[in-house]
Amino acid sequence: MLPAEVIAAKRDGRDLEPGEFSAFLSGYRDGDVADYQVAAFLMAVYFRGLSPEELRVLTREIIDSGRRLGFEDGGPPTVDKHSTGGVGDKVSLVLAPLLAEYGLRVPMISGRGLAHTGGTLDKLESIPGFRTDLPLERFEEVLVEVGCSMIGQTPEIAPLDGRLYALRDVTATVPAIPLVASSIVSKKVAEGTGVLVLDVKYGRGAFFHDPDEAERLATTLLDLAGEMDLSASALLTKMDEPLGTAVGNALEVREAIACLRGEGPSDLRELTLVIASEAVSAATDCNLDTALARLQEILDSGAGVDRFRRMVELQGGDASVVDDPEALPRAPFLTELTAPDSGFAGGFDALEVGRTSVMLGAGRRSVSDRIDPAVGVEILVKGGSEIEAGQAVARIHARTAEEAAEAGKRLSAALTVLDHPPRARPLVLKRLPGDD
Amino acid sequence: MLPAEVIAAKRDGRDLEPGEFSAFLSGYRDGDVADYQVAAFLMAVYFRGLSPEELRVLTREIIDSGRRLGFEDGGPPTVDKHSTGGVGDKVSLVLAPLLAEYGLRVPMISGRGLAHTGGTLDKLESIPGFRTDLPLERFEEVLVEVGCSMIGQTPEIAPLDGRLYALRDVTATVPAIPLVASSIVSKKVAEGTGVLVLDVKYGRGAFFHDPDEAERLATTLLDLAGEMDLSASALLTKMDEPLGTAVGNALEVREAIACLRGEGPSDLRELTLVIASEAVSAATDCNLDTALARLQEILDSGAGVDRFRRMVELQGGDASVVDDPEALPRAPFLTELTAPDSGFAGGFDALEVGRTSVMLGAGRRSVSDRIDPAVGVEILVKGGSEIEAGQAVARIHARTAEEAAEAGKRLSAALTVLDHPPRARPLVLKRLPGDD
Repeated sequence: MLPAEVIAAKRDGRDLEPGEFSAFLSGYRDGDVADYQVAAFLMAVYFRGLSPEELRVLTREIIDSGRRLGFEDGGPPTVDKHSTGGVGDKVSLVLAPLLAEYGLRVPMISGRGLAHTGGTLDKLESIPGFRTDLPLERFEEVLVEVGCSMIGQTPEIAPLDGRLYALRDVTATVPAIPLVASSIVSKKVAEGTGVLVLDVKYGRGAFFHDPDEAERLATTLLDLAGEMDLSASALLTKMDEPLGTAVGNALEVREAIACLRGEGPSDLRELTLVIASEAVSAATDCNLDTALARLQEILDSGAGVDRFRRMVELQGGDASVVDDPEALPRAPFLTELTAPDSGFAGGFDALEVGRTSVMLGAGRRSVSDRIDPAVGVEILVKGGSEIEAGQAVARIHARTAEEAAEAGKRLSAALTVLDHPPRARPLVLKRLPGDD
Repeated sequence: MLPAEVIAAKRDGRDLEPGEFSAFLSGYRDGDVADYQVAAFLMAVYFRGLSPEELRVLTREIIDSGRRLGFEDGGPPTVDKHSTGGVGDKVSLVLAPLLAEYGLRVPMISGRGLAHTGGTLDKLESIPGFRTDLPLERFEEVLVEVGCSMIGQTPEIAPLDGRLYALRDVTATVPAIPLVASSIVSKKVAEGTGVLVLDVKYGRGAFFHDPDEAERLATTLLDLAGEMDLSASALLTKMDEPLGTAVGNALEVREAIACLRGEGPSDLRELTLVIASEAVSAATDCNLDTALARLQEILDSGAGVDRFRRMVELQGGDASVVDDPEALPRAPFLTELTAPDSGFAGGFDALEVGRTSVMLGAGRRSVSDRIDPAVGVEILVKGGSEIEAGQAVARIHARTAEEAAEAGKRLSAALTVLDHPPRARPLVLKRLPGDD
């Protein structure tokens, strides 16, 4: 195996022999293939793609680069979800305790915010003391005791993915479908989940604007999950405006807790329930409708809050904030944005809201940036609602008056006011695989 | 300038701002942009190309990364040639002394063998003691005294090209037209030549099989040279069978000396004269026909041999071999290959002859391989000539009987014998720019 020949084959669109590709990747692990060779290879993959067989080889090499968790205690089925990233998407924070309360086990290895989208780990870390870097043994203990645990990627799980991701990030090779797919599926297989529900977003605030592109990724993910004996389904969901009302870390934790109490915005509740019932029906004998009814009962009872509180406690967090969310970090400057005209809200542009939130300090512009857990935006009107001139449409939580003013300017531009209700797009466009 | 954004722009086919591209390249020189980022960028260039403006920026950055020679002594005009690489191509060895004898100055910075093609430096180094690594001051002295000097790339001339080339070599990004063009033109500008004749080869033994692709490279090279105030023309020449009869380093030096004495194979003489008259007519008031007549006279007089001898002497080589080429290194095993049938020679396949020569030790299979100056192949019949079964068609110069036998097998397969004369293709297909 000559690394330059492997790169040339991919460059020319020739499929690699499994043994040859495998040797290239293990050469990278062992230091015989250099970062610059893998960087050129990844760019060739961006242009040429990977065959299904190549994708299997890559995914297996990533899984085999680290530990693979398994829960052999005869406990409940394991389930997890993955979202391709959105603005205001705090579904995981509600979903994990909800499914744990249902009686399933949810081993979640989550990520951080990327570009204008938020990350589950950043949100959880707005709870004082919460540790997302538990040792794997402790992760497994919390899982057995609470039914859910949420941590970040560790060097023990899929370390090859960590290296590849870091390289992709600085070489403009992140948005390549086979690379995205292998990264997601390998980590889910390694964390030990038996069921995976994929929330593949499309629209203004998603990485794919076009639903067809989102569907291509979903199909690749489902095929690959199938090859890896992971039971998976995918939902194509809309990300034109933020999900729920809160965008920003502590604000989103507060909203997630409200949702676990049976309150909270309807779109967040709806999406969480759809994903949760997918997971339940794949993991158990229960059909979708029965699962949905039982999950609604749990949310309305508020029983998921206890699971969440217990997880926070066992992961070192200050559990008192669960019952008193006002105790979460709060920003010193609060301003409201009002509607310039009367009419119908076209919905806040999710991309712009996400960027504004990053500007306020809720996300990172560079790797070394520190996140401010308190700042963010509350969206007070959703697309389609009737508004009156002067009505408050958004609330800004900022560190300084200057940043609040800047955010106000950007958010004004991010909301259109129409003289007629906008055409409504469904929250869930499609389920894959389709019913047949 | 964020390196990942520059890479993403090229990946997406957007043209880079000159300032942005320049900053990316100087970031690479200064260590702020990493090898892996440049590797991904080069692969994106392979797929997306470079705009004429981007190509100018790259070429200028390469030139400005090192010294730029200038001959301010009021001496003769400077001329040089570049060939895209062939098998048996020893034109430079004849051309430089010939043009020096004509009265021009030929500052040649040459290369080594690549893949199945030979390199001028490797050929010269078959002369015992010959130094291709002269300090630039010495190079300039030899030029002033003899009129020609031939050395290898030095870290003082276009060092950025050296780094980029090394990276391209191991990341399968060598065959990208804009990268090839900037590498060639930048070095010619930096070495101080005012005139450049390009020998762009096509055919079985060339990097481009297709004349249209060769013409695309030639056009890019001519446009770029024009931008850099370098007077250039290009010839598209055939490389289906080796040029001349000798393939292998000492064998080729011997053949070049014969050509300088007015002997030697006709195709080598013809191509050398065509290139030389191009150079003369571009550098002086002389028209092509007059130039050609005078150059023929010089070859026939053998006066170029004195220039060659003097250059060898001043570059540390054993000048006695010039008058006694049999004193050049000789291989211990000599075998002849005979024709299996009578008929017309289809011509030895240049690619196969080149590969056989590398196998014998005349080229490198990996960077660390040492070249054996003595070994190689003599082609005794050219395409179109009538042959009889049993007639010697090639002579193999090998280190061992085993390698000679292996070479014999490969060469038999590389010669077709036809029952009719093959369709002849002209040695020079086209001159660019065309006459208008």
